[in-house]
Amino acid sequence: MSGEFDLISWIAARVSPRSDVLLGIGDDGAILRPPAGSDLVIVTDTLNSGVHFPESTAARDVGWKALAVNLSDLAAMGAAPAWCTLALSLPAPDDAWLDACIDGFLALAEQHGIALVGGDTTRGPLSLTVTACGFVAAGTALRRDAAKVGDDIWVSGTLGDAAAALREVLQGKSCADALRSRLDRPTPRCALGQSLVGISHACIDVSDGVLQDLGHVCAASGVGAEVWLDSLPASDALVVLTVGAERWRLQSAGDDYELCFTADPSQRDGLVALSGVLGIRLTRVGHVIAGSGVRTLDGDGNEVRLKSSGYEHFA
Amino acid sequence: MSGEFDLISWIAARVSPRSDVLLGIGDDGAILRPPAGSDLVIVTDTLNSGVHFPESTAARDVGWKALAVNLSDLAAMGAAPAWCTLALSLPAPDDAWLDACIDGFLALAEQHGIALVGGDTTRGPLSLTVTACGFVAAGTALRRDAAKVGDDIWVSGTLGDAAAALREVLQGKSCADALRSRLDRPTPRCALGQSLVGISHACIDVSDGVLQDLGHVCAASGVGAEVWLDSLPASDALVVLTVGAERWRLQSAGDDYELCFTADPSQRDGLVALSGVLGIRLTRVGHVIAGSGVRTLDGDGNEVRLKSSGYEHFA
Repeated sequence: MSGEFDLISWIAARVSPRSDVLLGIGDDGAILRPPAGSDLVIVTDTLNSGVHFPESTAARDVGWKALAVNLSDLAAMGAAPAWCTLALSLPAPDDAWLDACIDGFLALAEQHGIALVGGDTTRGPLSLTVTACGFVAAGTALRRDAAKVGDDIWVSGTLGDAAAALREVLQGKSCADALRSRLDRPTPRCALGQSLVGISHACIDVSDGVLQDLGHVCAASGVGAEVWLDSLPASDALVVLTVGAERWRLQSAGDDYELCFTADPSQRDGLVALSGVLGIRLTRVGHVIAGSGVRTLDGDGNEVRLKSSGYEHFA
Repeated sequence: MSGEFDLISWIAARVSPRSDVLLGIGDDGAILRPPAGSDLVIVTDTLNSGVHFPESTAARDVGWKALAVNLSDLAAMGAAPAWCTLALSLPAPDDAWLDACIDGFLALAEQHGIALVGGDTTRGPLSLTVTACGFVAAGTALRRDAAKVGDDIWVSGTLGDAAAALREVLQGKSCADALRSRLDRPTPRCALGQSLVGISHACIDVSDGVLQDLGHVCAASGVGAEVWLDSLPASDALVVLTVGAERWRLQSAGDDYELCFTADPSQRDGLVALSGVLGIRLTRVGHVIAGSGVRTLDGDGNEVRLKSSGYEHFA
C-alpha cells in the first residue's frame, strides 16, 4: 500500500456487507438505515499500546480485542451489533502489521455480523478507538440503574484469567495458553446480553473488575450488594495457578469482558436453561441488598477487604 | 476530580439534553431514539497532538477542533448533527486542561445542537477521537460519487488560512488572529451542507486540501475537473501574506473544513441567494469535465502543476 487512500480501499474490499449499510467505507461518512421500532445503542472504547495491551501483543490480537471490548459493551446493554468505526493511530506505515490487525478485527466482526462502515487512520502512538452501534427493541435496553433489592447477582464465564496472564507477562514468565488467550482475545457475550433482555434487571460488562463494576450498578440503582468471594467463577488454569486472596484479587482486577447482571430469584431455572442453550457458564455470586456499596464475604461469611478492587484510569 | 469516574459525572452534568437521548453518559452505552424516515450518517476523526494540531494549541481550541472536524464531515453528507462520543487519551490527569478542553467542545456542540452521549478516558499520548451521528431524510444524503459532467464546482468560505497559520507557527513567527483562529477553531458548514441536499450533486469537506479532495470526488464519480487557481477564494489576511503559486499551495494544503461541491449550472442563482441567506461566501472555482483527474489552470488558462496538493498520512 502506498498511502492512506490505498489502505482505505484495501480495508473496504474485505468488509462483509449488510443490507442496512447504504454506503460504507470511503466517503466523508457512512449512510445507514436504522430499523423501525428500535433504539440505537452506541458505545466507544479506546485501547492504547502498553496501557490496555502489552506491547508484545500480536497485531491480530490487537485488532480482535479493540472490537471485542466494544462488543462487550453492546452485550451489556442487550443490543444486537450492527455497525462500527475504527480510528487507528500508527507510529509508521507497516503493511504486515496492519494486515494482521484488520484480519483479527474482521474475523470477530464476521462472527457477530457487525459491519465496519468507516474510520480514520492517523500517524501517532499506537492506539485504536472503536465506536460500535447496536439495536434493541424500543425501551428494552439493559441498564445499570435497575437492580432491585433481593435480586440474585450473576456472572458469566470465569473471572481473573486475563489479569493472571497480564501478571505473568509483566513478570516475564511464560503463560498458559488458556490464560493468555483470555487476555488477548476476549469473548464478548453478545448472544447472552440479547437473551437477558426482559430477564435481567441490571447488567454491566466486567471491564474494570467485577467488584468495581458491580459498585457502579449499586450506585446507579441505589442499592447495595453482597458477594461471596469463594463463588466467583474461576477457570481450571486459574485454579492451578492461584489460591485464596491472591485468586480473589485477580478475579476482581478487570479485563474479563464477562457480563455481571442481576435478576429476580424466580429467573433461576430459566437462567440455568439459558446457560445450557448458549454453552456459557452462569454463576450466582451474591445478591442485592438494601443500602449501598459492595460487601465481600469469605467462605465463613466474614467480611473481607481486598487491597485492590479493579482498574481505574487517572486514579 | 479524583479519578475517571468523577470526571465522567462532571462532564455528564455539563451536557445539554436532547429529547431523543433516552440515556446519555454513564452506562456501558448510550440509548438513543432515531427519527423515523431518516438515514443515519456516522463519521469519525482523530486529532493527535503534534500531528493534527500544534502542541502549543490551547486546550479549549483542541476540544473545539476535535468536534469541528467531525461536524464538517456530517455537513459534507448533508446531515443534521444529533449525537457524538469523545474518546480522550491524556498523558496525565490535568483538571484545568480538561476543563478548558471540554468547555471548547461543548461550546461548539451547543451551537449545533449535538449531544455528547458517551466516551472513554484513557491514559496515553494526547489524542481525541470523536464519532458523530447525524440524520438526513432517507435516500437524500450527499455523496462524493454523484458529480456530473458540466457541473459547476463550488467552494465555501476561503481556503489556505489554516495552512498559512500553521506555517507561521512552525516557523516560530507571530500569526494574524484571523489566520490562527481558522487553524484552531474551524467553522463547520453544517447549515450549508443541509441546505445543499437536493441542490448539490456531489459534496466533500476540504480537510486534505481542495485539489486532493476534489480528486476523490472525480475518482468516485468517474469524471475529471478543471480548477481555475486564481478563483480559489482567499481571505484578506491571506492576500496580504502571499502571492501567486505560494498562495495556491497554501490554498490546496488542507485543514480548511470548507465544503467543495458540484451543482448543475441552473442552480447558480439559487446558490447565490443561499450564500446571502447563510452569510457564507460561495465561489465557483471550476467545472466538471469528462475524463479523470483534476487539471489546475492559471489566469491565462495554462495548466499549472503545484508541487504539493494536500495532506496524506502514511504517504
